Amino acid sequence: MLNNFHITVRDLAARLDVAAEGDGSRVLAGIASLARARASEVAVVRSTKDAAAAQASGAGALIVPQDAAISGKPLIRVEDPKSALFRTLTIFHPPRRYPSDIHPTAQLGPGVMLGKEVFLGEHAVVRAGAVIGNRTAIEAGCFVGEGAVIGDDCRLHPGVTVYHAVKIGHRVVVHSGAVLGGDGFGYLQQNGQHCKIPHVGDVVIGDDVEIGANTTIDRAMLDSTIIERDVKIGNIVQISHDVMIGEHSIIVAQVGIAGGTTIGKHVVIAAQAVIIDHRTIGDHTKIGAQSGVTDNLPANTFVWGTPAQPTLHLKRQLVALRRLPSVLRTLARRGVLDDIGK
Amino acid sequence: MLNNFHITVRDLAARLDVAAEGDGSRVLAGIASLARARASEVAVVRSTKDAAAAQASGAGALIVPQDAAISGKPLIRVEDPKSALFRTLTIFHPPRRYPSDIHPTAQLGPGVMLGKEVFLGEHAVVRAGAVIGNRTAIEAGCFVGEGAVIGDDCRLHPGVTVYHAVKIGHRVVVHSGAVLGGDGFGYLQQNGQHCKIPHVGDVVIGDDVEIGANTTIDRAMLDSTIIERDVKIGNIVQISHDVMIGEHSIIVAQVGIAGGTTIGKHVVIAAQAVIIDHRTIGDHTKIGAQSGVTDNLPANTFVWGTPAQPTLHLKRQLVALRRLPSVLRTLARRGVLDDIGK
Amino acid sequence: MLNNFHITVRDLAARLDVAAEGDGSRVLAGIASLARARASEVAVVRSTKDAAAAQASGAGALIVPQDAAISGKPLIRVEDPKSALFRTLTIFHPPRRYPSDIHPTAQLGPGVMLGKEVFLGEHAVVRAGAVIGNRTAIEAGCFVGEGAVIGDDCRLHPGVTVYHAVKIGHRVVVHSGAVLGGDGFGYLQQNGQHCKIPHVGDVVIGDDVEIGANTTIDRAMLDSTIIERDVKIGNIVQISHDVMIGEHSIIVAQVGIAGGTTIGKHVVIAAQAVIIDHRTIGDHTKIGAQSGVTDNLPANTFVWGTPAQPTLHLKRQLVALRRLPSVLRTLARRGVLDDIGK
Repeated sequence: MLNNFHITVRDLAARLDVAAEGDGSRVLAGIASLARARASEVAVVRSTKDAAAAQASGAGALIVPQDAAISGKPLIRVEDPKSALFRTLTIFHPPRRYPSDIHPTAQLGPGVMLGKEVFLGEHAVVRAGAVIGNRTAIEAGCFVGEGAVIGDDCRLHPGVTVYHAVKIGHRVVVHSGAVLGGDGFGYLQQNGQHCKIPHVGDVVIGDDVEIGANTTIDRAMLDSTIIERDVKIGNIVQISHDVMIGEHSIIVAQVGIAGGTTIGKHVVIAAQAVIIDHRTIGDHTKIGAQSGVTDNLPANTFVWGTPAQPTLHLKRQLVALRRLPSVLRTLARRGVLDDIGK
Repeated sequence: MLNNFHITVRDLAARLDVAAEGDGSRVLAGIASLARARASEVAVVRSTKDAAAAQASGAGALIVPQDAAISGKPLIRVEDPKSALFRTLTIFHPPRRYPSDIHPTAQLGPGVMLGKEVFLGEHAVVRAGAVIGNRTAIEAGCFVGEGAVIGDDCRLHPGVTVYHAVKIGHRVVVHSGAVLGGDGFGYLQQNGQHCKIPHVGDVVIGDDVEIGANTTIDRAMLDSTIIERDVKIGNIVQISHDVMIGEHSIIVAQVGIAGGTTIGKHVVIAAQAVIIDHRTIGDHTKIGAQSGVTDNLPANTFVWGTPAQPTLHLKRQLVALRRLPSVLRTLARRGVLDDIGK
Repeated sequence: MLNNFHITVRDLAARLDVAAEGDGSRVLAGIASLARARASEVAVVRSTKDAAAAQASGAGALIVPQDAAISGKPLIRVEDPKSALFRTLTIFHPPRRYPSDIHPTAQLGPGVMLGKEVFLGEHAVVRAGAVIGNRTAIEAGCFVGEGAVIGDDCRLHPGVTVYHAVKIGHRVVVHSGAVLGGDGFGYLQQNGQHCKIPHVGDVVIGDDVEIGANTTIDRAMLDSTIIERDVKIGNIVQISHDVMIGEHSIIVAQVGIAGGTTIGKHVVIAAQAVIIDHRTIGDHTKIGAQSGVTDNLPANTFVWGTPAQPTLHLKRQLVALRRLPSVLRTLARRGVLDDIGK
């Protein structure tokens, strides 16, 4: 999306708390990759590996590491190019401000409370008694159920579903297709039928949480499924009823967390890992991709595999396993094993 | 969601087929957890482990196991607290009855047949020739394709997509974002291109099925993808074309079942398991989380792992594998293996 | 869905470049399976295993392999029944042509450019500056963001979300619930908080791509997430920011591809495999179901497992692992291992 923001190389350097080298008066209108940047754009050299691409880049200016030897362009030398990239992205692309607007096709139930400068997109539905905070954007086709509460400065991308009575904090971003507050998966066997256990609890999402596209978070049976503040959740993640995720944790795409499990703070769970039900994961623990966590995990551990175990142990076992076919052949040849095949 | 249902402790006990102890005239307006319950609410003590929480609870009454020693509150002693919890939840939270209502923004194609007391939410779309049964609720933003048939007392939560010609039985619940009847995934290689194989079959969903949020069930090529009655499917599950799932089976979140596979009755498939195409799984078989089923499975088996094997076998192998690094070191030390590294 | 197409057995055989046997004047109105076909329908016998079903079939005509011995029905003998099935499906079920129609509930932003004969379904939203090609169908409830570009002859099934500035080629099919162009998953740690890295790149989808239901494809940070032409993607797949997938590749359901990874041409990735970030996969490589790819892979390799390795190696290790418990018992019995348990 276009924005009309322009900044000189000198001013951009100042915003990054350094001085520019070369023509500081050059005007920049955006940031792009080394390969694509044009004369009106700045690009970032992240390491010396990028030197050739940097020299060949069409960028109008470069943000470079302290020791970069690049000539012919205005340069902004920084200690930490990755951080400078982030800051420059944010300078050119601040979070979008939505206009204050209720689209005429949006449908509001009785008793809905809307804050100031709310945006409701085309065909958005907000049911009876729901509360929408100040400057929050509910995009086209979203559904906000009865009595749900959404805080200030939130953004629900198109097509998000929020079931009744879900509580969402401030500055929460939810991507398209996410479903918050669906029924927990629980049945009681009676007379050979599965009888649905009513899930009458809710979901509580803390401040600064981001939730990926098509992710599902189920409501608790009696209490709350809780996502604490600053938790970041990727796409297509399943979080079951009565789960609790501690603040600052990172849940990568396609992870599944079963019912009643408690995740600590600053935990990282990599792609497609599963944690079974009613487990407890300690703070700062890291769980590798595709792990299957079957036990409680203490704080500060690194685990991988199914069933998950300390990553170092698993790697030693995998190295040994790769040798196993030839080891068995050797043992048989030496007569140590004569019962091959048993 | 509030309901205005109230019941005395005495009457609640009677509904659970037992007698109350203590002040049976106390009025209860809801059920909550031991931690959260207030004086107007009943809570359930599931086992002696909950004794301290029970004694400290603010609940107005407690449902307790026969041998519980708790004083100072009206008690309802039961044989099976879990079952009593379920029954009490259902007493306070019976399935929601939707009003009979066609929202003015709902769009109906020609020849749609609506039963009695149908609810169509905001922006719901029902295409030509579709049939909606009595008391069925099609929530906001749902899409029901041409010629689809939905039975009585069903509930499609907001944003469900039902492609053309899909058949859904009675009392079926479908959660938000589920997609029923998308094309099967099949291509024929021709001249170096993938040519899409038309999938002209359908999907048939039996009575009392529940389908989780963002789950996808593809239509068959010529025949039907079949989900038999009382099957319960979690969130984000993929069920491919021409799959058949027998009655009373449980499919947990994020499972994938490939094309043409037949699942028996009363099968349980745990989270993120995959079953490859054209396999047959016997009745009452249980498949562990993240398993990769590559072979047919007989009835009444328990399997786990990738490739899936009897759980007991896999566990023995995993125990042996954990010893393997030290076993190889011992064998090398004793000169039995001199070719370490090969 | 009904169509009113009819064809004689003789003409159908001619369309398949062969001659009919028996009553070539019989009129056929559709294709069905051997089990379900009626007198007005043709069915396909794929191999001699189907002989009994073929003889019992109610089909009005059969497409059979060259050597089939079936009597009493008009036959169409072909070299390749699978290919003939595909061609016959396509004859009876050509791709649906949508009427040229903009539904009155569809919402168009300023400056939208619509090609000829565009279909916009109920409650579809097309934002400012978006471009929709000729004969493209945007079904009910779809969202097309600001400045997105969609080519000719595309079909977006109901409820697809296309974020701003996403580019889609010609003849692309996107199934319901897919989300194209959501933000990449990337945060920078600052002062103990996760700061969202703006993702200001886009997604570029080539011609003839098909994208499954509830699949998510994230936008790049600075450049483009690229899906080249004729790539086919199943349901519930996660493709992260800055991924590149080469032409003709097949990505099966529930696969996850992490950020910055490049997939070659003609690659096949089976169900629920994960490829970690910033890896490169060579052309024509095949990755087994549930694999976890942690390294770059050369062209023309077959891998399986987590971590993925050549399938043949893994299978040998799995065979050896199954023997391991009894091998350890034998070694202990013979006194070669006395430190069992260590």
